[in-house]
Amino acid sequence: MKLKLTIAYDGRPFQGWQKQPNALTVQSSIEAALSAVAKQPVSIQGSGRTDAGVHASAQVAHFIMPQGLKMKPENWVPALNTKLPASIRIMNCEEVEEDFHARFSALEKIYTYQLYNGLILPPLMLGTVWHYNRELNIEKMEQALRLFEGTYDFRNLAALRGNESDLTDYTRTVFEVQLKCEGAMISLTYRGNGFLYKMVRILTGVVVEVGSGKSSLEDVKLLLDAATKPKKPPYCAPADGLTLQRVVYS
Amino acid sequence: MKLKLTIAYDGRPFQGWQKQPNALTVQSSIEAALSAVAKQPVSIQGSGRTDAGVHASAQVAHFIMPQGLKMKPENWVPALNTKLPASIRIMNCEEVEEDFHARFSALEKIYTYQLYNGLILPPLMLGTVWHYNRELNIEKMEQALRLFEGTYDFRNLAALRGNESDLTDYTRTVFEVQLKCEGAMISLTYRGNGFLYKMVRILTGVVVEVGSGKSSLEDVKLLLDAATKPKKPPYCAPADGLTLQRVVYS
Repeated sequence: MKLKLTIAYDGRPFQGWQKQPNALTVQSSIEAALSAVAKQPVSIQGSGRTDAGVHASAQVAHFIMPQGLKMKPENWVPALNTKLPASIRIMNCEEVEEDFHARFSALEKIYTYQLYNGLILPPLMLGTVWHYNRELNIEKMEQALRLFEGTYDFRNLAALRGNESDLTDYTRTVFEVQLKCEGAMISLTYRGNGFLYKMVRILTGVVVEVGSGKSSLEDVKLLLDAATKPKKPPYCAPADGLTLQRVVYS
Repeated sequence: MKLKLTIAYDGRPFQGWQKQPNALTVQSSIEAALSAVAKQPVSIQGSGRTDAGVHASAQVAHFIMPQGLKMKPENWVPALNTKLPASIRIMNCEEVEEDFHARFSALEKIYTYQLYNGLILPPLMLGTVWHYNRELNIEKMEQALRLFEGTYDFRNLAALRGNESDLTDYTRTVFEVQLKCEGAMISLTYRGNGFLYKMVRILTGVVVEVGSGKSSLEDVKLLLDAATKPKKPPYCAPADGLTLQRVVYS
């Protein structure tokens, strides 16, 4: 039986999603809890990685129910939550078809990035927003965001991991980016069929450079031209403001 | 010269507002920063105490500018913020009349209390809401809140500090309490001419007991009758959900 977990986390205490030796990560914390409940090693497959400090409202992962274990899907929720730190919560657990794959079945991902554009950061926002206190031209930012919508080779707007080959496909489709202002808070919501490594943070960094006047819309168009290598890598916004909101499946 | 500070803080790291020996408090942290800038001891007077774990968006305090110090009011803001932890921010500093007093000149205080009434608490809300996962009757809560509006002797809806005398005045006026639901989040906004020790948390605890069916509106009316001592002290909601939003002066 295949089970799908919906997971929320505060990214601050973790070295990101992906399990790594000698690091506290979200994946390794959940696998430790699952293995403790199942009394045997259980591994999970996430919809994708999130970096250190990035949050999630509804990350998705799947795992195969260990043989011989009789447990209703919904009972995994309290069983795991009592073993996990309060910074990770299993929000839901349900059975899925055998061909479901948290990563490969994902049709759409939704991320939000929160910027606080006021002079002094209210302390309760610490760690969950990017505090940017210089003036921003919202109209220009909207125009830059419009440029990202569509299907492009986004290699100039991502960080390379070093394990890319000639066959690595950098093409992604950004369906929509929405900007919302509420007082000094600016929220950017990105919807796409997938995002490259650090891509949402780099798109945000680029948009803020346009808003602050450091870059032009022409500079953004150049970055979207994969054939032109940029002179310097574009600015990557800090992890704090980023939350994986939702992963959409059919 | 008298100066008025507007202060925001995350209450989690502090043993409340009030300075105490051998405890990290908001007042002592600000006095330490002020004294370091002024190079002489400076003390402040707050609009009132907040308990350990209670937050503030705009607490107010005043202090007397030390003699011989020439510094523009607005320059205290960055000078203090560089010396304070990020969990306390001076949001504003301005000159006030000599007869201004942060506590005695206050005409109105506004507090909000946030309850998360969902099954599982999203990790980013930890420490800033009361997670209450049983069903609540919002209509009944609204009815209970209406009972608090007005001028009453609130002694049965406060915690006694032990230093009260026969002359202690427990009369306060609650101007308005608003309840707002947004998904699983319930926000209560209390406006009054002042609140007794733990009063907002106790009003909230009582309202939640009405909403969960543990108490009736008749029970609430009895608590508002200062002549009748309650059999057991009413429930006090946890500090986490409470924020001092604003102090209003003429």
